[in-house]
Amino acid sequence: MNSVKIGSVGLGRLGLQHAVNIAGRVQHAGLAALCDVDEARLKDAADRLAVPGRFSSFEEMISSRDIDAVVLVSPSALHTKQIAAALAAGKHVFSEKPLGVTVAECREAEKAVEAHPDLVFMLGFMRRFDESYRYAHDMVAAGEIGKPVLFRSYSQDPEKFIEGAIAFAPHSGGQFLDMAVHDIDLARWFTGSEPETVYAIGGCYAHPEFAASKDGDNVSCLMKFKNECMVFLFAGRTAPHGYNVETEIIGTKGILRIASVPQKNLVEVLDAHGVRRECSENFLERFDTAYVNEVQEFVNCIVEGRRPAVSVYDGTRVSQIAYTCKSAFESGELLRF
Amino acid sequence: MNSVKIGSVGLGRLGLQHAVNIAGRVQHAGLAALCDVDEARLKDAADRLAVPGRFSSFEEMISSRDIDAVVLVSPSALHTKQIAAALAAGKHVFSEKPLGVTVAECREAEKAVEAHPDLVFMLGFMRRFDESYRYAHDMVAAGEIGKPVLFRSYSQDPEKFIEGAIAFAPHSGGQFLDMAVHDIDLARWFTGSEPETVYAIGGCYAHPEFAASKDGDNVSCLMKFKNECMVFLFAGRTAPHGYNVETEIIGTKGILRIASVPQKNLVEVLDAHGVRRECSENFLERFDTAYVNEVQEFVNCIVEGRRPAVSVYDGTRVSQIAYTCKSAFESGELLRF
Amino acid sequence: MNSVKIGSVGLGRLGLQHAVNIAGRVQHAGLAALCDVDEARLKDAADRLAVPGRFSSFEEMISSRDIDAVVLVSPSALHTKQIAAALAAGKHVFSEKPLGVTVAECREAEKAVEAHPDLVFMLGFMRRFDESYRYAHDMVAAGEIGKPVLFRSYSQDPEKFIEGAIAFAPHSGGQFLDMAVHDIDLARWFTGSEPETVYAIGGCYAHPEFAASKDGDNVSCLMKFKNECMVFLFAGRTAPHGYNVETEIIGTKGILRIASVPQKNLVEVLDAHGVRRECSENFLERFDTAYVNEVQEFVNCIVEGRRPAVSVYDGTRVSQIAYTCKSAFESGELLRF
Amino acid sequence: MNSVKIGSVGLGRLGLQHAVNIAGRVQHAGLAALCDVDEARLKDAADRLAVPGRFSSFEEMISSRDIDAVVLVSPSALHTKQIAAALAAGKHVFSEKPLGVTVAECREAEKAVEAHPDLVFMLGFMRRFDESYRYAHDMVAAGEIGKPVLFRSYSQDPEKFIEGAIAFAPHSGGQFLDMAVHDIDLARWFTGSEPETVYAIGGCYAHPEFAASKDGDNVSCLMKFKNECMVFLFAGRTAPHGYNVETEIIGTKGILRIASVPQKNLVEVLDAHGVRRECSENFLERFDTAYVNEVQEFVNCIVEGRRPAVSVYDGTRVSQIAYTCKSAFESGELLRF
Repeated sequence: MNSVKIGSVGLGRLGLQHAVNIAGRVQHAGLAALCDVDEARLKDAADRLAVPGRFSSFEEMISSRDIDAVVLVSPSALHTKQIAAALAAGKHVFSEKPLGVTVAECREAEKAVEAHPDLVFMLGFMRRFDESYRYAHDMVAAGEIGKPVLFRSYSQDPEKFIEGAIAFAPHSGGQFLDMAVHDIDLARWFTGSEPETVYAIGGCYAHPEFAASKDGDNVSCLMKFKNECMVFLFAGRTAPHGYNVETEIIGTKGILRIASVPQKNLVEVLDAHGVRRECSENFLERFDTAYVNEVQEFVNCIVEGRRPAVSVYDGTRVSQIAYTCKSAFESGELLRF
Repeated sequence: MNSVKIGSVGLGRLGLQHAVNIAGRVQHAGLAALCDVDEARLKDAADRLAVPGRFSSFEEMISSRDIDAVVLVSPSALHTKQIAAALAAGKHVFSEKPLGVTVAECREAEKAVEAHPDLVFMLGFMRRFDESYRYAHDMVAAGEIGKPVLFRSYSQDPEKFIEGAIAFAPHSGGQFLDMAVHDIDLARWFTGSEPETVYAIGGCYAHPEFAASKDGDNVSCLMKFKNECMVFLFAGRTAPHGYNVETEIIGTKGILRIASVPQKNLVEVLDAHGVRRECSENFLERFDTAYVNEVQEFVNCIVEGRRPAVSVYDGTRVSQIAYTCKSAFESGELLRF
Repeated sequence: MNSVKIGSVGLGRLGLQHAVNIAGRVQHAGLAALCDVDEARLKDAADRLAVPGRFSSFEEMISSRDIDAVVLVSPSALHTKQIAAALAAGKHVFSEKPLGVTVAECREAEKAVEAHPDLVFMLGFMRRFDESYRYAHDMVAAGEIGKPVLFRSYSQDPEKFIEGAIAFAPHSGGQFLDMAVHDIDLARWFTGSEPETVYAIGGCYAHPEFAASKDGDNVSCLMKFKNECMVFLFAGRTAPHGYNVETEIIGTKGILRIASVPQKNLVEVLDAHGVRRECSENFLERFDTAYVNEVQEFVNCIVEGRRPAVSVYDGTRVSQIAYTCKSAFESGELLRF
Repeated sequence: MNSVKIGSVGLGRLGLQHAVNIAGRVQHAGLAALCDVDEARLKDAADRLAVPGRFSSFEEMISSRDIDAVVLVSPSALHTKQIAAALAAGKHVFSEKPLGVTVAECREAEKAVEAHPDLVFMLGFMRRFDESYRYAHDMVAAGEIGKPVLFRSYSQDPEKFIEGAIAFAPHSGGQFLDMAVHDIDLARWFTGSEPETVYAIGGCYAHPEFAASKDGDNVSCLMKFKNECMVFLFAGRTAPHGYNVETEIIGTKGILRIASVPQKNLVEVLDAHGVRRECSENFLERFDTAYVNEVQEFVNCIVEGRRPAVSVYDGTRVSQIAYTCKSAFESGELLRF
């Protein structure tokens, strides 16, 4: 079986994790090259993972014959251009979300993908590759919970990361684009439907700094989907207990809850604080296996000549919805899609 | 210590339970009389509980010198008139919710209460007397979870009661007035604030019969409160697992969940279905002690000459909010209070 | 229906709770008298509960015509004599465990009970009257878990009560007689069988003071019952999290766990300590309702002329078993019953 | 970094899983060869995993220069000889438990290992490599729960595998050697101590067939360790709910429970059966990551020239203890180590 030679771009926290995964946890793949503008960080990672190709220029990396595919974990603002350039260079592309920072950029990405039907393109909606989410999705798809009535999903970052979030706020798209996009993706995936209306609220409950960016530290929205399903999303940056991603799907015949408690592991502690579970600290810990699984699926698609279930159009659609949520939040009005 | 002689009105399921409680579980009180239009039901209950006073006429009962107070568990449409009549007859009044079936009726009830400042009037928002809700409220009041960010509350009736709900639908006020009033009361109690806006959706996911009454079998709403707190309420009639009342209060420093799983008792079963908890079957089981506690508080207020914390104005306010939620649901518009 | 006039003896923590329960939470009964050698304590309780009869002498109280029955919550060393005297005076008797402080005393109690077949005698194994234990027992009795394989039961007192336990140690019978008796009772009740062998170990893990009384701060034993069921009991005085009484019955077709987590109420807290439940603080909190239920059953037996399911012989048998466990612990040998 | 070339022996369920793991989930290692006496099974696995070396003879495989290390997942009766032969051939050895089927064999294995101090030898006590067990062990080692008081560990196989267990019973060492060895290993690892006494009981509660092999379908034992810690182990083959491995360590300052509920994943289901978690089906599902981690540690030890924390003497000691438990069970006597 052929091994897919991957060049990975961006060595931030998630980028480094992807590199480690490709180097040792993804089958039928090899980490052929790394790319980062920070030369010291590049050298450190490449040395540690024994990666032959080292590039501080993205353009140089994609012109290399030694790579078959790229994994983009670069800043969001670069995604669209890098997707187009990599595809034009004949490379398969896995890109972290978002597809682009505007809907117009997403459209550009769509065109680039359409122009290369022979190449695999996949977007990093990793929650779809988490075992628990997949198990729940299989149950829903098998009709075990009947018709979906309410889809509820939370994304909460721990308070302890708040300084970084505040610093990043002016460059961020806000909570709906930064955090709720994954919940929007799940809502579409689980319900098989699209939103019709959205009402969004929230505020700066602990950190007034977000107001300057027309954002809140905690926000929520209620949407009605075309199939009548109610969708309630909540995104927050001040979780006192840890990294909390939980989802509930109430159906007419059954209810599923995924990670209703963000348990760190299987250890229960009984002490002066009561009976307790320690919590996941961040997305890397909670979705460790999902990050491996999604890149594995990307590689499998390349090897087997398949298309990923997550298409470029999903990326655009999720961005569109997140932008509408953001507009609803900023205007305080009920918006229709 | 004097014993308060109570006449209890209405012997439906909850009425009978109140009678049993007053007869044997409430201190400083005695069940002096029962009243119901169904003579057979009246005789059965009165015999069983050895109650001396038996009335098929409410007016006769309140003119009796042998009772100090009435507990109203009669049909909602009778509440306002019975409250006024009982107060006029010099009796303390405990009434099950709602205060009235229209806001105008609630105003009448207010006037009747205001006209008798010497008599105790209390409305049956029993959840406030549940030990877990009280414990959580104390924590919130003590500032342990910081500023409230999101208040989420569910009221779900089990699917097995659906036939009764369908039959009752034309006479009912709909889900927001029938079920969500308790969640609305909790939202005001926990946040200490009032709603500004509401968006409400839902539908007939399993039972189209509710559409004829402009209602759904499952509904929800998202409200923004004056103190910025987000409030999400969900009410449903098709719960597959049992009677489910759960509440979550997300604060900036802590999160509380009350009854996130509607456990019937402390028994955990491990068998072919997995590791499981059986669920509460109905409100009488779940709020058994709360129903005792609320009437105990009513009696204590009489004995000690205190006013209950739940006022007649709370009853009006909750009805107003529920009506606005209903209008929002029926119109599909975002409404402002 | 006649009301049973009860005289309650002993006003320690549990005694006071029994008095409160009889005064206001037990039906068909009235608290006619209180008895305690501490006159101040007696006056306080009697005033608070408006009890007419007040006795500092037990003998005087039982010679009163104003009481039908006694509830004994006196020091263990007095139980046997008070049981005999009360029965001889024609009073029904409810006694807290133990029946006697030696097996010989238990035999005396048996004789006293046998001499008064017309009077109701009941022993306070309150766990049998806890709703969760009853629910589990019904399931086992209905064959839902098949044949019992392993019965495991823990009784743990919180560390914060350790000073009292150390002070009381020289007068106590040790852990098996003080604490494990309830687990022994449950084991016999759930399995319907009797022990054949016992091996018992333990030690002073945190508090060497117990060694002087040939006791440990934590002990356990493994017994084989006649029906082959394995029985593992653990009793400890250093629980870091609270008052923990939990039981597991593993059967060939199902497993039941009662209170596997000593949750204080239905509130879940998510904060810096993780996701947690606060714990029961003591036996009065955990078995609040069970203490009411057991005295209610005593009263019902009197009113209805029934015998309680818990007999005096159960009291003797449990004491015998506890003494054998104690001997096994002290000798380090495997003992046969 | 050098890649360790591994030859894996035995292609039963666990053997196949080890092969899959080595081929794709263990870093710095490659699956160079497979060995099984069943040629069809060998071809299938080798084709599927693209393994160059294929051997139906163990001796041939270890004489190959293309492998650096062997992983033994062969029948227990072959372990000792294969360990010795592989070491003699200059190969590093990872062997599944047990070290040998008698203590004498374990001693032989010790000698073989001692004769090759330059080669890495490691035994497959995979639970030590499960993340939750490691996390708990770290907490205990850091003193967070104080002094260990009670160590309780269960190993339960689901009833649905009972036919295979009955068929294998005559060739098996019984429950203590087959199942409880892992709990014995954990007990020593967590307490850092050794047993002094053991009392063991059990029986055939559902399946009399085990009696012919002097075994039971469910057994337990209570041991006192030298550091005074009480150790209670339970092993059963009739679990109604799934594969259940759980451990509790009660300390003087805290209590830890590992996998007190054998949850399959993070999905909670609320339906007609209540609120429930589905359970792990078997050891491969529960310890999936642990099986990868242990071989990874073996490989890391080879690459880094380290010795594994689990020594050959641990293997002997665990076997000795399991044999003593077995003798105690068969004799019904209290045994001292």
